Amino acid sequence: MYSIEQVREYIEKSINELEFNEEPKELYEPIRYVFETGGKRLRPLLTLMACNLFDENLEGALTPALGLEIFHNFTLLHDDIMDEADLRRNRPTVHKKWDQNVAILSGDVMAILAYEYITTCEVNVLPDVIKVFNTTARQVCEGQQFDMNFETLNQVSVEAYLKMIEMKTSVLLAGCMQIGALIGGASKRDAELLFNFGRDVGMAFQIQDDLLDTYGDTEVFGKRIGGDILANKKTYLLIKALEKADKNQNKILNNLINGSASNPQAKIDAVKNIYNDLEIKDLTNDLAGDYFKNALLSLDEVQVSEEKKFHLKQLADLLLNRDK
Amino acid sequence: MYSIEQVREYIEKSINELEFNEEPKELYEPIRYVFETGGKRLRPLLTLMACNLFDENLEGALTPALGLEIFHNFTLLHDDIMDEADLRRNRPTVHKKWDQNVAILSGDVMAILAYEYITTCEVNVLPDVIKVFNTTARQVCEGQQFDMNFETLNQVSVEAYLKMIEMKTSVLLAGCMQIGALIGGASKRDAELLFNFGRDVGMAFQIQDDLLDTYGDTEVFGKRIGGDILANKKTYLLIKALEKADKNQNKILNNLINGSASNPQAKIDAVKNIYNDLEIKDLTNDLAGDYFKNALLSLDEVQVSEEKKFHLKQLADLLLNRDK
Repeated sequence: MYSIEQVREYIEKSINELEFNEEPKELYEPIRYVFETGGKRLRPLLTLMACNLFDENLEGALTPALGLEIFHNFTLLHDDIMDEADLRRNRPTVHKKWDQNVAILSGDVMAILAYEYITTCEVNVLPDVIKVFNTTARQVCEGQQFDMNFETLNQVSVEAYLKMIEMKTSVLLAGCMQIGALIGGASKRDAELLFNFGRDVGMAFQIQDDLLDTYGDTEVFGKRIGGDILANKKTYLLIKALEKADKNQNKILNNLINGSASNPQAKIDAVKNIYNDLEIKDLTNDLAGDYFKNALLSLDEVQVSEEKKFHLKQLADLLLNRDK
Repeated sequence: MYSIEQVREYIEKSINELEFNEEPKELYEPIRYVFETGGKRLRPLLTLMACNLFDENLEGALTPALGLEIFHNFTLLHDDIMDEADLRRNRPTVHKKWDQNVAILSGDVMAILAYEYITTCEVNVLPDVIKVFNTTARQVCEGQQFDMNFETLNQVSVEAYLKMIEMKTSVLLAGCMQIGALIGGASKRDAELLFNFGRDVGMAFQIQDDLLDTYGDTEVFGKRIGGDILANKKTYLLIKALEKADKNQNKILNNLINGSASNPQAKIDAVKNIYNDLEIKDLTNDLAGDYFKNALLSLDEVQVSEEKKFHLKQLADLLLNRDK
């Protein structure tokens, strides 16, 4: 078994060896640029660690794992165009550094490259791997569309929100686990259990992301606390608060959302006050905790020794108890 | 063996049964819209006809054939954003009818759907089919980028131009033939020969497209003759004319390209005069004819009876002797 750190090093080394120096350069330079900027490499990490539960050798899962990272970066690249984001990981986004056409088309190439990499797996698992990836990939796009739709809706239910983050974020993490497991030689049942593990860890992770944006420590979190509140973003915190608020709190919240934030810090404090009154922080922590517990229940059922599950449990712990 | 008309009807009937009515509707309505508008359905036609050379039953190739049509429409959808095109097949383009974000994301979903459909083929040919499609799909994107690059270049060589249209148009037609053949049970060699057939027919087809834009019959062609000349588009005709022109003709051509076309018809006539002096029409016809001959040489080598090749030869004839 490899430790988290060892797998991470293996991924970084392999990514550094990717060249993307084909022609036309307008298509491949942005791909290189996107990969230079790092990131958590969470998707290949999950893929390889899932594989490692069943196979001591990680080589067969490496290229597919990198394909999943390429796919993730493709979605970020196109999302950044749609969200008109200027910065990603503290550097100009591709459509800002080059232009929009380059961002659209190099994104398209990345989607195809993702398939090229993922379909290098052994023929005996290829049909299952492709099926998982096709479903996952499409759901990620559907999740992004739901997320954009939410921006113009007055009300979003907790249920619809959870479905959206499941599609936009969790299923890809889940798919990585399932694909890694299949390549490692897992039974279909174990591969599905690991899909569930990945999905629930992903849900907990995303819910905690919402929490950190409001309750994190600025210095550790690395960006301004309260950004979601200022942007009126429909996070779990806001949706839950609107659901729980009494008439008066609801009125205050809606005034804050619809008003002009002439004093940003005052708006953040006012919304946080209501969150505090409604115990939103605890409720959010509880929900993340429930998903985390469910994730571990799925992992428990996987037919490999407890010893082998150690590193995955450690990773889930790290992800859930992070402060950035 | 099925006739061209029978295969075409089978495709239309199957496309009409596609529903694309999943959620969120913002992603699937544009896909339905794109498919309503018809088009030549050339890619599924080639796929199924290639399959039919080796298999009396077309069913196994149907879904992959539709996947190739979905992929083609995905590239048109994203190209239309990049080219800022307002109309496609006489209707508003998706980014005009909805908005750009919808066009980007429903295009992404179409790319994934294409893979979903194509990878429904039998497991025994799946690895080869995916390999052909991955390579083809990426080259289509690379061809589009080269095409966009050419717009800002002063000079494009005949060689670079032919390479561009090969990537942007011909390889997908070629890939359709190869994929259809593989699904039908062709040997690898026959499938490759049919790739070459499709590629060369595609080249002849695209070169003839350039010719029709300048020398076609307005009423039959369905759009204004000389559009490429007015747009200074680097077609085979212009590139070849610039290559063959003497100093004086070169100067006139460059003045026409760089000048303001205050009288569009006069510009078209002046450029056509030079084309006529340089016998560009004949040269272009000859080149298309050479590709056509090469296509038939590849088809000759395919190990099926002459009788079975009849419909494909007929299709190539139809494509090459079209006037629109």
